[in-house]
Amino acid sequence: MPSIATITFGHSPTSYSTCLALHPLSSSFYSSSAATIRVPLISPTGKPNCLIRLSSASRMRGPVVRCAVIEKENPETERPDTFLRDSDGENGSMSSSTSVRARFEKMIRDAQDSVCQALEKADGVGKFKEDVWSRPGGGGGISRVLQDGAVWEKAGVNVSVVYGVMPPEAYRAAKAAASDQKPGPVPFFAAGISSVLHPKNPFAPTLHFNYRYFETDAPKDSPGAPKQWWFGGGTDLTPAYIFEEDVKHFHLVQKAACDKFDPSFYPRFKKWCDDYFYIKHRGERRGLGGIFFDDLNEYDQEMLLSFATECANSVVSAYIPIIEKRKNLPFTEQHKAWQQLRRGRYVEFNLVYDRGTTFGLKTGGRIESILVSLPLTARWEYDHKPEEGTEEWKLLDACINPKDWI
Amino acid sequence: MPSIATITFGHSPTSYSTCLALHPLSSSFYSSSAATIRVPLISPTGKPNCLIRLSSASRMRGPVVRCAVIEKENPETERPDTFLRDSDGENGSMSSSTSVRARFEKMIRDAQDSVCQALEKADGVGKFKEDVWSRPGGGGGISRVLQDGAVWEKAGVNVSVVYGVMPPEAYRAAKAAASDQKPGPVPFFAAGISSVLHPKNPFAPTLHFNYRYFETDAPKDSPGAPKQWWFGGGTDLTPAYIFEEDVKHFHLVQKAACDKFDPSFYPRFKKWCDDYFYIKHRGERRGLGGIFFDDLNEYDQEMLLSFATECANSVVSAYIPIIEKRKNLPFTEQHKAWQQLRRGRYVEFNLVYDRGTTFGLKTGGRIESILVSLPLTARWEYDHKPEEGTEEWKLLDACINPKDWI
Repeated sequence: MPSIATITFGHSPTSYSTCLALHPLSSSFYSSSAATIRVPLISPTGKPNCLIRLSSASRMRGPVVRCAVIEKENPETERPDTFLRDSDGENGSMSSSTSVRARFEKMIRDAQDSVCQALEKADGVGKFKEDVWSRPGGGGGISRVLQDGAVWEKAGVNVSVVYGVMPPEAYRAAKAAASDQKPGPVPFFAAGISSVLHPKNPFAPTLHFNYRYFETDAPKDSPGAPKQWWFGGGTDLTPAYIFEEDVKHFHLVQKAACDKFDPSFYPRFKKWCDDYFYIKHRGERRGLGGIFFDDLNEYDQEMLLSFATECANSVVSAYIPIIEKRKNLPFTEQHKAWQQLRRGRYVEFNLVYDRGTTFGLKTGGRIESILVSLPLTARWEYDHKPEEGTEEWKLLDACINPKDWI
Repeated sequence: MPSIATITFGHSPTSYSTCLALHPLSSSFYSSSAATIRVPLISPTGKPNCLIRLSSASRMRGPVVRCAVIEKENPETERPDTFLRDSDGENGSMSSSTSVRARFEKMIRDAQDSVCQALEKADGVGKFKEDVWSRPGGGGGISRVLQDGAVWEKAGVNVSVVYGVMPPEAYRAAKAAASDQKPGPVPFFAAGISSVLHPKNPFAPTLHFNYRYFETDAPKDSPGAPKQWWFGGGTDLTPAYIFEEDVKHFHLVQKAACDKFDPSFYPRFKKWCDDYFYIKHRGERRGLGGIFFDDLNEYDQEMLLSFATECANSVVSAYIPIIEKRKNLPFTEQHKAWQQLRRGRYVEFNLVYDRGTTFGLKTGGRIESILVSLPLTARWEYDHKPEEGTEEWKLLDACINPKDWI
């Protein structure tokens, strides 16, 4: 067995930091920016237990992953207290008494508990089913799915912790190294919470949120080199019908969370969200936005940890009051059909554009965790155009022309 | 306005002929293999009426099309007798008394008529709705969709004729030219019929077929250079439940059509079909196959025209007898839910892997024609696994392990 796998991605190098993709609902990060990267077949812990997936590139669309290496996950019967390696606990990579890794993991697991509790309470009937898994080289995840409840058609709330190695080109500090020094593969740590909530009632909106933290170690042959870190995430709302008070409430909660940290955050991340969730072939956004940010590290690390925590902790107050108002509204078959058409757009965005999903599918993440973001049911009608001035038309118009809701 | 648009595709050059993609249900061919291609903003007829679509590449997944140029289609109120340019009619590019272009167009339009007629008859209630369009530089298409009939949930049967220009690198003969001679853009002609038929009854299978013909002119600065041509297409069956006699009948009709021309065709194109309709992230085929071929030109042109005609003319006899046997079978909600899950797989294949769909979405074909291939309704359940030995399990097993049905 060779000790290095060459992974050829189909496209040319761009900014590396923007090409690191954490699948929102899976347990893997993928680096996609190098035309060719070389990854050791030995896991970060020195175990050779990697799964190699070879694919025939000839009949695939690009970007073509000729060979991807990820560790296969193993199911666990119990939740461990932490998915961190021992060395990452109390005295990890940061100078604070408890590492950012450890505090971020605790934050996302607490958020998973509190969001799931609030969702079960709002549902009244449905209960979350839990799947726990780990990877031999460290890390793991907890997937929770509530399907076919009283309120929720399908609700997934997942957390994951990943240890991996990435190509040295992806390590920013490596660019400053002398050109005759070729740094080795860079170990990384990634953790995130991700959730998509699809209610049954067409007047109750879909919610998506995702908060993630990413950290690199110094390359093994340059132990003194600086470690690096980034935060990413966001929360966004996808209704089938607009209740202005709901959308305004939702955006106000996002703005309040942002304003506690920086007045520039809300306008900047609101626009980023509108830009990211764009279904190009339709000329429409998936929904009515919220906030989205990625590769954030140009602020104080503690501040950003607090910011991500604030955002994750705002999910329940941003969303559950809307659900309580709309979950029992009477609706017709026409309302349901329109919701289903919008669910079709959700599927189109996730399968065609979402970075995490598309890389996850290509490189072999946990498929059921990745695709739990898809709605239970969706619909595509040929050449459907809502009549101008109708409620359906108003929603479509707001997806085509993003509005300021506050 | 610049006279040349640079189109950057996200991946490196491979075999050009395999990267020419005709969207099965749209009206456009796309050339995708060059890392960067340059396309005149003047249409083949010298008219500058092209639509330029610029996209922000930074937030898109690859392959990234930085700028695509296609002519915008115009709706027509009547079907023209032909979408060919005048010069392509009786004395076109081929030496026969009527050009291959003209005979292929007639073949696909006749096939569209006869298939639609047979589908309406089998349905008994639903009628096809027709959209006709043309492009200023020549070519056009006819989309026919029957939605929510008695038998068909959604049935699309489209034909199109496209005139365009492709990068000279895509023209095989150019490779033999002297290296100091840079040939200009190569005019091409493409025509095809494409169809996806989704019945309501979960025991009645989905059918897809597509037959297409592609031809290049000599580059304008090398009028004596050889013209080139290729045929492609196939017919494949996607049931939710296996009736062995149905699948066997379907494959026998495909084999009979193949065997009239070459005994190697059926085994070769059967395997090609199993390989093409592969949902990699699931490790499953979309359905139970049939035949598929692409870039076929290593045989006599007249023979291949007859072969494509035979295949297209076999659709009704391969499919309608199965529909007649299954369209009125009683079924349960469980049967319907399983059909809907398989429809979800259909959506996954088409949006994630199908070459025509993915390039069509990125480069701006007629979206409604492209996405008419999607089912009216689809379903995704978390971690659904049919119980071993059940009828659902048998279908899944046959999608994972392709069988010889004859």
